[in-house]
Amino acid sequence: MNPTRFCPKKLEEIAAEVFTRTGISHAQAKVVAQSLVHADLRGIESHGLSRMPIYVKRIEAGLIERQEEPQLVMEEGATALIDGKNQLGAVVGLTALEQAMKLSRQTGIGFVGVRHSNHFGTCSFYAERAISEGLILLVLTNAPEAMAPSGGIRPFLGTNPIAVGIPAGNEPSFLLDMATSVTARGKIVLAAKKGEAIPEDWAIDKNGNPTTKPEQALSGSLLPIGGAKGYGLAMFIDLLCGLLTGAAFGPGVKSLYDNWEHPQNVGHIFLVIDIQHFLPLPVFQKNMDEYIRQVKSGPKKEGTSEILIPGEIESRKRSERLAAGIPFSANVVEELTQLCSIYRLDFNEARIT
Amino acid sequence: MNPTRFCPKKLEEIAAEVFTRTGISHAQAKVVAQSLVHADLRGIESHGLSRMPIYVKRIEAGLIERQEEPQLVMEEGATALIDGKNQLGAVVGLTALEQAMKLSRQTGIGFVGVRHSNHFGTCSFYAERAISEGLILLVLTNAPEAMAPSGGIRPFLGTNPIAVGIPAGNEPSFLLDMATSVTARGKIVLAAKKGEAIPEDWAIDKNGNPTTKPEQALSGSLLPIGGAKGYGLAMFIDLLCGLLTGAAFGPGVKSLYDNWEHPQNVGHIFLVIDIQHFLPLPVFQKNMDEYIRQVKSGPKKEGTSEILIPGEIESRKRSERLAAGIPFSANVVEELTQLCSIYRLDFNEARIT
Repeated sequence: MNPTRFCPKKLEEIAAEVFTRTGISHAQAKVVAQSLVHADLRGIESHGLSRMPIYVKRIEAGLIERQEEPQLVMEEGATALIDGKNQLGAVVGLTALEQAMKLSRQTGIGFVGVRHSNHFGTCSFYAERAISEGLILLVLTNAPEAMAPSGGIRPFLGTNPIAVGIPAGNEPSFLLDMATSVTARGKIVLAAKKGEAIPEDWAIDKNGNPTTKPEQALSGSLLPIGGAKGYGLAMFIDLLCGLLTGAAFGPGVKSLYDNWEHPQNVGHIFLVIDIQHFLPLPVFQKNMDEYIRQVKSGPKKEGTSEILIPGEIESRKRSERLAAGIPFSANVVEELTQLCSIYRLDFNEARIT
Repeated sequence: MNPTRFCPKKLEEIAAEVFTRTGISHAQAKVVAQSLVHADLRGIESHGLSRMPIYVKRIEAGLIERQEEPQLVMEEGATALIDGKNQLGAVVGLTALEQAMKLSRQTGIGFVGVRHSNHFGTCSFYAERAISEGLILLVLTNAPEAMAPSGGIRPFLGTNPIAVGIPAGNEPSFLLDMATSVTARGKIVLAAKKGEAIPEDWAIDKNGNPTTKPEQALSGSLLPIGGAKGYGLAMFIDLLCGLLTGAAFGPGVKSLYDNWEHPQNVGHIFLVIDIQHFLPLPVFQKNMDEYIRQVKSGPKKEGTSEILIPGEIESRKRSERLAAGIPFSANVVEELTQLCSIYRLDFNEARIT
């Protein structure tokens, strides 16, 4: 049986209404709802509406601010620093992105550091916006402890993702959005929710042994890509997002799920490059198209039907889901139905009949 | 028998003299010599003086310019574009680094693109200089085709490295310098020179099969770290270094070793961050020290004697080799002796007796 599908537009409306009813301003609630549905559209269920219950729980627990606005602490040359004032991460992230885009129009580059933020959804949410403005975005964020340093066994670094968006013309734009761990922690959280086993190269348990059990992985340590290289990348991201901005770093970044005493204090970096300072955008986009066609037309491994550009699968999924709706697992539907009912809303109104 | 060791200072002098005798200006020859000895000091033999013969061969073949100077094509806001004028890569790289450092003092960030450059040695050469000025450096370069896209079998992307330098105070500074392939192509070149086998997760042969033979790997395709993630990272680096700057990209970047018709036309990106726009440098360095101590004092895997920071092994090796001299394999000694004799110089004068 195919899972029931839900209308993206209606999901956004319902999610925005839930956040509004927790006391978040409607404008901010809309941003967060868009960020979550954006992830579901691209098939990144681990960062989609399945996160709404935990966001709401933290708001209700007073661990995310309802009334503040992100604050510009410093703006100087091509740089800025934003205090997220413990707002919902997507609200803070979008504010920082807009600041970085503004700076890039002035000086060619905008480099914005952010402190006192929260989990800000998928990085691709910001990359997609920058791409649509003809800009290149590099976005980094730190995250709660999940990976041990090479040689260590206790988690210290987050899965600290790096994402890059680069606009093409007619071909699909380049959109890389990757955790520096072999897999994203969210995927293990989802596997735990679904009761599924995980591949054994994803994580070690708390004693340093490989495990296929998501619960053991979550109390152990994720593995970085490329061994010491991924360890180094994750640390570089933490040093910029945490140390340079004044946000938390290492195990100081609090868990979205397990810490009920402190705000997360996540840090982000948004770096925007205005292509037009280097060459006319249409020329760049034409070159991108040519590049992508060259990559895709190369000889393929036996059994491979197509060479893909980073982000291409997700952008196809987005088109498909915009047309046919978003499917959710029964677990997620149940959880969201329950959450909505608390706020006197009917999640099933988003169902496509 | 321990290999003979050579005096770093004298190696620099002899190497600079060799380059000078090929027609390079003495100032530029000195920079390239420093860059190569820098790599040998850090134990990165694949990027050390073992590269001198190929550099010289390309100069003598007229594929690297002797007389030009790198040219500033554009400077606007926080960005600049440099045309390397097909100079030796280390000369171009250092010019770009200095430009990026200058911009960062003005606007907080300096973002410099480079085209028409050559192999520029290890990224750590530049990172070490930025660190010594209390600056953060992110440096990217593209490189000749070596890695197939995920799903492909023909090399398209270079091993495109990323390097980051972040200054600490009393603790060792953070210095990550990594290829986006599982290993650097230079290490396979060196294994081929030494006649040694390579691990089988480093590369595939031209038919897509794993291989332990360096020669087959060099005519096949290196593997990226983390599968599609490393593929994405290498492509992001190529798009910025190649497409944004107007340098070559993909297979358009010519081989240092195998192409005797065209200049390499390598592209680089230098991004410098002036920490002081965010917080006082001494505070940042104190926080770095605390961070590094936290990482290093964590619990270790059985059999691990110490948790290391990226760059720590290399910086220790540097101290050791500055004191005791640099050892070379017999192959490399022979090759360098031969090269020096062509320019009426005695390589053995650098030998520590």
